[in-house]
Amino acid sequence: MASRMSQTRPIAAIVLAAGKGTRMKSTRHKVLHEIAGRSMIEHLLASVEELAPERLVAVVGEAREQLHEALGERVRFAVQDPQLGTGHAVQQAAEALAGFDGDVLVLYGDVPFVRADTMRRMIDRLNEPDAPAAVVLGFEPDDALRYGRVIAQQGRILKMVEWKDASEEERACTLCNSGLLAARSQDLFALLDRVSNKNAQAEYYLPDIVNIAIADGQSCAVVTGESADEVAGINSRAELALAERQWQDLRREEAMAEGVTLRAPETVFFSYDTQLAADVVVEQNVVFGPGVSVASGATIRAFSHLEGASVGEGCEVGPYARLRPGAVLEKGSKVGNFVEIKKATMGEGAKANHLSYIGDATVGARANIGAGTITCNYDGYFKHRTVIGPGAFIGSNSALIAPVTIGADAIVGAGSAVSRDVADGELRMVRAEQLVKPGWADRFHDAMKRKKAETKK
Amino acid sequence: MASRMSQTRPIAAIVLAAGKGTRMKSTRHKVLHEIAGRSMIEHLLASVEELAPERLVAVVGEAREQLHEALGERVRFAVQDPQLGTGHAVQQAAEALAGFDGDVLVLYGDVPFVRADTMRRMIDRLNEPDAPAAVVLGFEPDDALRYGRVIAQQGRILKMVEWKDASEEERACTLCNSGLLAARSQDLFALLDRVSNKNAQAEYYLPDIVNIAIADGQSCAVVTGESADEVAGINSRAELALAERQWQDLRREEAMAEGVTLRAPETVFFSYDTQLAADVVVEQNVVFGPGVSVASGATIRAFSHLEGASVGEGCEVGPYARLRPGAVLEKGSKVGNFVEIKKATMGEGAKANHLSYIGDATVGARANIGAGTITCNYDGYFKHRTVIGPGAFIGSNSALIAPVTIGADAIVGAGSAVSRDVADGELRMVRAEQLVKPGWADRFHDAMKRKKAETKK
Amino acid sequence: MASRMSQTRPIAAIVLAAGKGTRMKSTRHKVLHEIAGRSMIEHLLASVEELAPERLVAVVGEAREQLHEALGERVRFAVQDPQLGTGHAVQQAAEALAGFDGDVLVLYGDVPFVRADTMRRMIDRLNEPDAPAAVVLGFEPDDALRYGRVIAQQGRILKMVEWKDASEEERACTLCNSGLLAARSQDLFALLDRVSNKNAQAEYYLPDIVNIAIADGQSCAVVTGESADEVAGINSRAELALAERQWQDLRREEAMAEGVTLRAPETVFFSYDTQLAADVVVEQNVVFGPGVSVASGATIRAFSHLEGASVGEGCEVGPYARLRPGAVLEKGSKVGNFVEIKKATMGEGAKANHLSYIGDATVGARANIGAGTITCNYDGYFKHRTVIGPGAFIGSNSALIAPVTIGADAIVGAGSAVSRDVADGELRMVRAEQLVKPGWADRFHDAMKRKKAETKK
Repeated sequence: MASRMSQTRPIAAIVLAAGKGTRMKSTRHKVLHEIAGRSMIEHLLASVEELAPERLVAVVGEAREQLHEALGERVRFAVQDPQLGTGHAVQQAAEALAGFDGDVLVLYGDVPFVRADTMRRMIDRLNEPDAPAAVVLGFEPDDALRYGRVIAQQGRILKMVEWKDASEEERACTLCNSGLLAARSQDLFALLDRVSNKNAQAEYYLPDIVNIAIADGQSCAVVTGESADEVAGINSRAELALAERQWQDLRREEAMAEGVTLRAPETVFFSYDTQLAADVVVEQNVVFGPGVSVASGATIRAFSHLEGASVGEGCEVGPYARLRPGAVLEKGSKVGNFVEIKKATMGEGAKANHLSYIGDATVGARANIGAGTITCNYDGYFKHRTVIGPGAFIGSNSALIAPVTIGADAIVGAGSAVSRDVADGELRMVRAEQLVKPGWADRFHDAMKRKKAETKK
Repeated sequence: MASRMSQTRPIAAIVLAAGKGTRMKSTRHKVLHEIAGRSMIEHLLASVEELAPERLVAVVGEAREQLHEALGERVRFAVQDPQLGTGHAVQQAAEALAGFDGDVLVLYGDVPFVRADTMRRMIDRLNEPDAPAAVVLGFEPDDALRYGRVIAQQGRILKMVEWKDASEEERACTLCNSGLLAARSQDLFALLDRVSNKNAQAEYYLPDIVNIAIADGQSCAVVTGESADEVAGINSRAELALAERQWQDLRREEAMAEGVTLRAPETVFFSYDTQLAADVVVEQNVVFGPGVSVASGATIRAFSHLEGASVGEGCEVGPYARLRPGAVLEKGSKVGNFVEIKKATMGEGAKANHLSYIGDATVGARANIGAGTITCNYDGYFKHRTVIGPGAFIGSNSALIAPVTIGADAIVGAGSAVSRDVADGELRMVRAEQLVKPGWADRFHDAMKRKKAETKK
Repeated sequence: MASRMSQTRPIAAIVLAAGKGTRMKSTRHKVLHEIAGRSMIEHLLASVEELAPERLVAVVGEAREQLHEALGERVRFAVQDPQLGTGHAVQQAAEALAGFDGDVLVLYGDVPFVRADTMRRMIDRLNEPDAPAAVVLGFEPDDALRYGRVIAQQGRILKMVEWKDASEEERACTLCNSGLLAARSQDLFALLDRVSNKNAQAEYYLPDIVNIAIADGQSCAVVTGESADEVAGINSRAELALAERQWQDLRREEAMAEGVTLRAPETVFFSYDTQLAADVVVEQNVVFGPGVSVASGATIRAFSHLEGASVGEGCEVGPYARLRPGAVLEKGSKVGNFVEIKKATMGEGAKANHLSYIGDATVGARANIGAGTITCNYDGYFKHRTVIGPGAFIGSNSALIAPVTIGADAIVGAGSAVSRDVADGELRMVRAEQLVKPGWADRFHDAMKRKKAETKK
């Protein structure tokens, strides 16, 4: 067995993303569709970035303005137009790699779940003493179907062959070509120059470089990933949903192994960056959007939806809690039963347990937000802050018209609209005239019943 | 292969629905239980109506008043009482078919998912040159179990045989009898007159007409449906749930194939008539009741429930949106976070994003409905309308007491109960006396803490 | 076949629960983790209590204070510290069983779903005429893996053997040892005294008593449970989730067999004590916490969460209903669309259909609770009651400040905060000054647009 080499040359990656993806039936570029709260291509970039590449090139074509907008400065862009095959696509990256001398990974924007470790193994193989001209990533699917085959002996490739050109014997070989490949930059572009498009589709195929190198007497190598799922391409919404399902299932198993209780794992949905500590309990039907962390001992009850939120130790969230970006729940605080929190901090032990909207606010420790409380944070043009002191008690159905400060231990009477600051320990309530009309309701009922009867005639 | 004939005789269908269904353990008639928001028998009628039948007869018995109420004028009713077998049931339809001369389909109310195309093929077969006396719908289940067998050669029936009477050789034949059948009206009733009830159950069995016709030297034919699922009967709540699951799974696949993103397909539930355009995104845990259409680019976020609603291009619905019948969301409007919309139109770009109830209302373009806004549309007897002008801003926690009109670009102050019209560009707010009691809250806390301590003694 | 004996000796059970469960990665003791709303050990105790045992002993060790708190007087506690094997664990129960002469069951706190009937069969076998010294509960898993084997002929044990010590022939025998065992008290402790710890782990193994008894020439018997699932141990959160899933699936099948419609069974979650009558319809995504009963004809709509609630005939609950402990819905009442009910009774035909919180209240028959109504039941220290009379109409966005009584047929105007009682047939509303500022909003819009434009510069 070859010993693992430490790679010393710089690394670049070329991500092919020129095709928008007809089978998605979408105006959105295929690689921008999301899995676990992050686009396919960003999943892939996150993995390749673990290898600290010196350059990242995205080869784009259709709908490329969408990729410019989504990826910005994160990659260099090369344009492939028209699209004449994968070999042609890689050639378009030549300019963006001008002056680069190192190892190049060729990746696909719609094959998002290749593991960094697998990429690393491809690069390492390229740097072993036998110095292969190219390293192909192979995979062994449950059913090899019509994938192109990698005919190899002990990791050394004898031949790359398309299924339609393969002999019976070659088809019986189940090591398939993922399309992913690593090669040293000068080798890659030199070999690509020799690829021809004399084939049925009149396209330049990237895998042809392997056969050309072999014909030259150079060695080419194949490595295999951890599972066939890793190199699954996503070309339709059904495949997108399947990839999401597989991702979620793995993440659920991982969470449980780390000491998180999932009452019904199949009903809990994570984002790529969800962080849950041990002894967190997650009930049924919970959705974690991006940017959520939950500390130990917290319970996320059923029907809760969290995005960009930080939940402290021992907090109780939900059922029916809606935590939006900027929600910070400090230790032991409680939020639930149709309550929405946005850009607001709930202090230690504070409670907002019923039908409230707390936005752009700071709620002090132990404060109690009554049912139906609304922070009026928006005047149609600007957002304003509400500050509620520790130990304050906001009576039910109150409107706090920001900017406004409610002092420590202050009390706001039920049903009050408060637009001026309330001092510490002060009571503020709205005292409106109570109109009392004895018997009026009885007369109203009688009149209405008569009217209703007449309406029916 | 026989060429497809265009059918020229009129068509009638008899739907057997006399048995209420003991295994459902329900006071509701079996065929009125729902799948995907529509009763079993209505699913079946919708399919058969694609053939434009001249007459539709439902043979009813137990709990028939429920069927009268549910189906009204849509079918003619024939009563079977007592219930002496399927042959006897069909005979009861004779009167309702008096004067009808054409092709008759015999269907079952608890076999709701027979496809219109399959029915059409049965009728077409009946009209081929060999003019079979009857056409039986056969099916090939994964496991033939104890179903009655159709012994046939090249689509021509040799014999119909019950499992218990079948030889080993006959049991090895896996083409089974679905019970569905087509025959020309005069043939059907003439043959039925000759069916006997000399059997263990003392019942008149419909399939016996096939054997009688064959004995007469007439030909009878069998056609098979697309899948065995099509002829599955539903006799228990477990079978009802299974049929719902199969229906939903097919519909989910179909939606994705049409370009709809389903983040977690298994958590999205459609109704029979749900319409979703391409590039609609549906997040986790969404329920579509009957009568919903969603235009391109709209996002239906998690935990939303829609019934009888029309969602325009690019709208954002949910999380936790409750759209009830008559909800119309125009282009780019937003509704979510515990908001209910009923018989109300949200104009282009209008927003109701938090804890509101908008019923019997028209909300103008770009209007902003603050958190906790309620349209008070009901006085206990009649519903009244609220009209909100374009660009209006309704402050949080307001109550709009209908009938009331809020003008264009008008502003309603937070916490206001508005019962009189507000003019265009006007500010309306309720100014109640703010009672300020410095230190009162501190004294209250002290007193209550003492009382609480005493209570615990 | 041996005839079933009626057992006459008293019964005791020893529940082993000394290990906290490292693989759970929890500060909570393993057997206190919950399935279907009840801890594992309480599931097990509920089953064994069906046998009316004279004594129940829990052998505890790590985190035993948690078990003391959870189980209180329900069991006697014996401490195992240090933990030297299952045989040693059972020995620690000797003192708690002092003076007891009868049949002893040895159970495991992390094997919670052994059926009472299986336990009964173990005890019955012990009382058959051949008077075995011990009865072992065996099981036949799909895959026998490395479980210890029970080598037996016709229910009589020849040998107990660990997998690692078993011959090929013995491994081929797939009857496995569950670890559960029954023996007469004096036999059990006498045999245990002879068990040695001369083995790799230096532990005292309970099953060794069987081999010792057999060597003495006594007979030992094996009985098998209904399914291997029954004796599955739960050692990790993944196993906990799997057990929950299996429990829920069985319960869902059971509910449907009893005449409950589950639109999507896989999305409905029951507690151990949920009671649903026939012809209840449960829509998608419903969670039943402990203590819920639902009467016939009621519909529980999607996204509802019920705990400690009683739902009457024909009620409509949800979508988005949150019923908390003490919620009582009388016949035909309706609660839904973001409404929370806690310690409150909704009278016959009463309605609370939108965005309300009804706590510590009595709502009379036919009363109508308007959208956004809040009962202000809490002053920060004490809870107070609200009483609403029959036929009363509470206008939208009202706050009822408890303690307060609203009379029969009374009307509360929309947006009112009511702190004093309202008499029968009376109208009560809050009349605040309506501030009208024509054109103000237009000027505000202009000013804000200018400011916004400046901010962006």
